[in-house]
This record gives sequence, structure tokens and C-alpha cells, in this order.
Amino acid sequence: MKTKTEQNDVRAFLKKQIREIPDFPKKGVIWRDITTLLKQPEAMRMAVDILYERFKDQGFTKVVGIESRGFILGGILADRLGAGFVPIRKKGKLPAGKMSRTYHLEYGTEVIELHLDALSPEDKVLLHDDLLATGGTTMAALDLIKSMGVREVAACYLVELTGLGGRNRLGNCPMEAVVTF
Amino acid sequence: MKTKTEQNDVRAFLKKQIREIPDFPKKGVIWRDITTLLKQPEAMRMAVDILYERFKDQGFTKVVGIESRGFILGGILADRLGAGFVPIRKKGKLPAGKMSRTYHLEYGTEVIELHLDALSPEDKVLLHDDLLATGGTTMAALDLIKSMGVREVAACYLVELTGLGGRNRLGNCPMEAVVTF
Repeated sequence: MKTKTEQNDVRAFLKKQIREIPDFPKKGVIWRDITTLLKQPEAMRMAVDILYERFKDQGFTKVVGIESRGFILGGILADRLGAGFVPIRKKGKLPAGKMSRTYHLEYGTEVIELHLDALSPEDKVLLHDDLLATGGTTMAALDLIKSMGVREVAACYLVELTGLGGRNRLGNCPMEAVVTF
Repeated sequence: MKTKTEQNDVRAFLKKQIREIPDFPKKGVIWRDITTLLKQPEAMRMAVDILYERFKDQGFTKVVGIESRGFILGGILADRLGAGFVPIRKKGKLPAGKMSRTYHLEYGTEVIELHLDALSPEDKVLLHDDLLATGGTTMAALDLIKSMGVREVAACYLVELTGLGGRNRLGNCPMEAVVTF
């Protein structure tokens, strides 16, 4: 178990491993590129450790990862926690019976879907996405998850962009982000 | 370490956890839906164990996962092997300098991309995708990886559709698939 100071040092180190791309995907946006962190084994492990330590031993039965970057650490967290992995996918990708939610995000409208048989009311779910911004994707995902009768949900991210209101929209849903900008 | 018979029993069990969806994404195609396997913690762990046991202790430094289902077990394998994770993504998704390859697949034409700084000639790479069919995606991905000067590459899959020639196209590239149809 790391002390608070040690963990802050780790987070500061991890923040530096994320590359800034100006004007991507459009002018005026600074893209936070996590690929420069993920390709380094030690950095990736440190990031996963922070999320794993926060949510281990709490009985999570499923990790829900949001397509597609949320699949990367989402899969790892499922493996580490001994939970199943469930994908939330973009429109038209899931092959069986499913529910959809449409929501608005910075660059337009998006539809996400979840298989009807992916979760049951007894599941305790950890939602993972790579990045929390306005919280639009997360709120749509939480709505899908809760529509399955699931009552216990937490959320976690590699990156949180503060000041866009995402964390506030989560209300009392337990949450953790590895680094913040 | 499991005996050959035990491992064959595991593979037969895992095969049954993959759901058949007739006529998806188009009429006449049988879709192999891996979500029914991934949502079960024990089944997911067994599948990862087979790939991990096959490729552990061989010095792999990077796992390259193909968007988007290849990110799930690809991330887990990187974590298990102590390797970095590198995504190969669909066109327009990677934000920094990159290389592209265009190839043909059963349902049309596809473009995949890899960041120019993602790999170096010293890397030993394990490529992961969820499914091997004709091998078109794999060959394009191997071409991208080798263009970085990488000389040692292996490939692994959750599902192999035999009889479509994928395995033959891989030549002497070491490969493993958890289940075959």
C-alpha cells in the first residue's frame, strides 16, 4: 500500500506520460493521447494498480468497458478483480438483443448499446472509460446499466478533464480517475 | 500446467460459451459472439490462461491489439506479460504521426493505422485480435508492425475460423487460437 505522497508522485509521473495533441480531432481542442502511457509497461501497471487498489475486495462481479478505449484497462481490471467483462458498444456492433441510449457530446450525437442479457440485478458493476469529460457518455452508460436492475455501480477513468462538470453529474456514484487535467 | 487432455476439455467448454448468431451482420453469416464468454469470470480467465501460458517467459515487450474487440484480451495479455500495450486503430482515430494499410475483408474495405512511435526494432511483439478468419486484418497488421523494423512477432486469437486460409497466410509466424470453428 502506497502512502498518499507516494501515490501523488506516481500520478504526477503518469500525467507526464500522456501526450498533448493540439487541434485534434478539431481546431481548439487539446487531445490527451493515452497511447504514450499504455505502451510503457511500468506506467500502464502503475495506472492499473491505482484503480485496482481502489476497487479490489468490494465484490465487483462485472466490469463494463465503453468502446473502444475503455476496453483496454476495462479488460485488465476485470481480469485483476476476477470479474466478468461486458462491452458497451457503438450502434450496430452488438449482435444479440440489446438496449440503446442516444446522447449528445462535444463533437455530435452518439448511440451506445448494451446486450439485454449482459447484466443481472445481482451484479455489482464497475464502469470504465478512458476519459471523463462532460459525463455524457457515462450518464448514458449508467442509465443502460441501471435499466438492467443493477443497483451497485462505481465508475473509473484513466483521465478526468476537470471543470466540465462530469464528476458532479455522477452524484453519489463512487468514482476514481488516475490523472486529472 | 495442464495436461493436453485437460486443456482440450477446457477448450471444448470455452467453445460452448461462444454464442452463435445466425445472419449477422448479414444473411448467411454465422456470427461468433464472444460476449457470452467474456461476461463469465471463470471462462474469461481460462481463455486468457491458455494464451498467457503459450507466450509467457519469451520476452514479449509489446502486445498490439486490433480495434476494438482485440483491445479486451490484448490489454489483459499485456498486463499479464508485463508488456506495453499498443493499439492498431481504424482510420482517423489515432491522433499523432502514423502509418496506414488498406485491405479487403468479407464485408468491404478497411483501413487500419499504427502510430509511428509505437514500436521500435528492439520490440518483440505479440499481436492479438479476437478472431482469425481469412487473415486479411492480420496480414495488414503484421505489415504495419514489420514496417517499424520489428523482427520478432507472434499472433494470437480467441477464435479461429478454420478453412478460410488465415493460418496458412501467417506462414512461420508463431500463432495460437483458444477455440476453433
